[in-house]
Amino acid sequence: MDIAYPIRPEAAAAPESGIVTLMEYGRGREGLIPLWVGEGDLATPAFITEAATRSLAAGETFYTHQRGLPDLREAISAYMARHYGRGGPIERYTVTIGGMHAIQLAIRLVAGPGDAVIVPSPAWPNGPAAIGVVGAQAVEAPLCLSESGWQLDLARLAEAVTPHTRALLVNTPANPTGWTASLDDLRAMRDLARKHDLWIIADEIYGRFLHDASLGIDARAPSFHDIAEDDEKILYVQTLSKNWAMTGWRIGWIEAPAALAQTIENLVQYSTSGVPVFVQRAAIAALNQGEGFVAHQIERARRGRRIVHDALARIPGLEAPPPAGAFYAYVRAPGRDGEALARALVDEANVGLAPGGAFGAAGADCLRLCFARNPAHLETAMARLVPVLEKALAGPV
Amino acid sequence: MDIAYPIRPEAAAAPESGIVTLMEYGRGREGLIPLWVGEGDLATPAFITEAATRSLAAGETFYTHQRGLPDLREAISAYMARHYGRGGPIERYTVTIGGMHAIQLAIRLVAGPGDAVIVPSPAWPNGPAAIGVVGAQAVEAPLCLSESGWQLDLARLAEAVTPHTRALLVNTPANPTGWTASLDDLRAMRDLARKHDLWIIADEIYGRFLHDASLGIDARAPSFHDIAEDDEKILYVQTLSKNWAMTGWRIGWIEAPAALAQTIENLVQYSTSGVPVFVQRAAIAALNQGEGFVAHQIERARRGRRIVHDALARIPGLEAPPPAGAFYAYVRAPGRDGEALARALVDEANVGLAPGGAFGAAGADCLRLCFARNPAHLETAMARLVPVLEKALAGPV
Repeated sequence: MDIAYPIRPEAAAAPESGIVTLMEYGRGREGLIPLWVGEGDLATPAFITEAATRSLAAGETFYTHQRGLPDLREAISAYMARHYGRGGPIERYTVTIGGMHAIQLAIRLVAGPGDAVIVPSPAWPNGPAAIGVVGAQAVEAPLCLSESGWQLDLARLAEAVTPHTRALLVNTPANPTGWTASLDDLRAMRDLARKHDLWIIADEIYGRFLHDASLGIDARAPSFHDIAEDDEKILYVQTLSKNWAMTGWRIGWIEAPAALAQTIENLVQYSTSGVPVFVQRAAIAALNQGEGFVAHQIERARRGRRIVHDALARIPGLEAPPPAGAFYAYVRAPGRDGEALARALVDEANVGLAPGGAFGAAGADCLRLCFARNPAHLETAMARLVPVLEKALAGPV
Repeated sequence: MDIAYPIRPEAAAAPESGIVTLMEYGRGREGLIPLWVGEGDLATPAFITEAATRSLAAGETFYTHQRGLPDLREAISAYMARHYGRGGPIERYTVTIGGMHAIQLAIRLVAGPGDAVIVPSPAWPNGPAAIGVVGAQAVEAPLCLSESGWQLDLARLAEAVTPHTRALLVNTPANPTGWTASLDDLRAMRDLARKHDLWIIADEIYGRFLHDASLGIDARAPSFHDIAEDDEKILYVQTLSKNWAMTGWRIGWIEAPAALAQTIENLVQYSTSGVPVFVQRAAIAALNQGEGFVAHQIERARRGRRIVHDALARIPGLEAPPPAGAFYAYVRAPGRDGEALARALVDEANVGLAPGGAFGAAGADCLRLCFARNPAHLETAMARLVPVLEKALAGPV
């Protein structure tokens, strides 16, 4: 730390994103195909943006409800009822500045200095980082990679529990691994949480992107909603980002027992003070009229998965089972340095992947590729990428 | 706390806004004139909203720079150079989800459990509340009310410093009191901070709204920028909300020594993950083309101040010196219960004021009124409000 600027250790320790580091490395390369970030390449559809435009034209530019517009919270509840079989009262829902803010609020509710939160790993790095920012400890519980894909290791998860543990942060379907909890996995985690009086923070934002039909419930991934009791100690975080191509809008929600609604409203008040009304109008349009677009996105991700994994399967030495859910290939090159591979792919293939170590130490020999993209671009990317990876993996470890 | 839902004490202790409580009391009253919230009644002007609309139409709906668009940070630096005489490199500026998020980041940088932050009081409650949310203690240092208005009590401020103190959170011109630090006040606070190695968190969001010309520097309020050295330990928080009628947009910035830029970027990444590009485009339009509108807003607030204080001066027993800056009347009815008065004003005058106690214990016998509003509505409000307050203050204490 710069002694001229003494700051809190929790703030100083917040890590730089390992994804962004590689993006900086590749910035400005002409023709580079960017598959490193967790977003598709479709702009938000017009029926959504136009809802925001109309709201702006109508002068909806003032402060609004800290919990979110009642109309949006009704739309969220109705969406959850349609897809998850239960919506519940709008007191369960608070609108947030994206899924990240929902995670920050969830963590702020349940963890602080001296506390630990367990995260199945590899994991999206922002969860563990946000746990660190409140002064708590993120404890990684490794997933395991088998020929059929990434799997929960329940024993490792249970071993990670200590008297300091306050919560499990569970992302299913998972970024980056595509691991998708079965109903049995969910029950086992729920039972573990009950046994130790832990919260579950459930990040199911990729729930609609399910590729392994054997797991599916109405074509979506299993959810804690399928097995939880009403008002169980679960905080669900959600976002409009992925389903409706709204990454840049920064809108999501947190779902919690209604008894916590006022506390969550207070935490919104003292962090972001609400979400713009015109952004909320766009979210209402997305939730109420967006099913056709979501279906298109899911179909496109399936096609991308096929293109990418058909190509990756040709590379000897690469462990690349197709993921059960989400929209990433997360592949392992045993004994290799994922970051060096990612740099080589920028330099030699002009394709941008995220280094697997950005998602935890367990992924240091991995790479992540987002396949929610234009199929033609994916074909080109794979044609360039495969020979470079083949060459790299043919050399000595 | 609900034992079914054990949550962190810092989260559970986050207070409900005393302003919102009264708004709930008055919700749905037909014809009520709302002067309780800190925002004007003008919608964002079209040249600003149209910049957002164009951006949306152009498909700017993706993730963006965590620090904010370089174009916006250039516009901020140029604005600061024009109005405060120094802009500096864009590495000093990070775009945030409104001024509140900037305050949250500033507090997260400098305070945590075991730390204290001193706040001249009465104060906008969100600052002290955000200090509490990180587990630190907000220590109120009372301002004093004289016939010439609210004044800094430097001795009380100095007395409040302990070995736990990490920062002063200074809002000038102040919400709610209108207190506006002179250059001498600023130097004294800066010297106190230097002596004890404290940070200053400078909230100067009302700096353009100066009514006491004797204090003015180029028609704005004195700023720590006028007396600070380059890269002094000061974190400035700012917002587009007030000058450009953009309260509902949730965009502002934090200005900090460039050495902290990466840490601040990381804290943005793990709290909100950036600000929508289309909102940033609107902010660029505001900063670059908004001076005419700002001048109109300032003139309107001056007119509102005159209407309100001419009326308040007629009420015997009310201590109501016109404020030096900002756009609030914050008046004291010695010995009275500000919240009871505010409820009476809803019931009997159909006018909404904020109870003074919402801004700290020192304001329990006060009321706050926002006068950045339509002059005709203010005339009507005062005609209704004066007799009710006169009657209330004529009764026994």
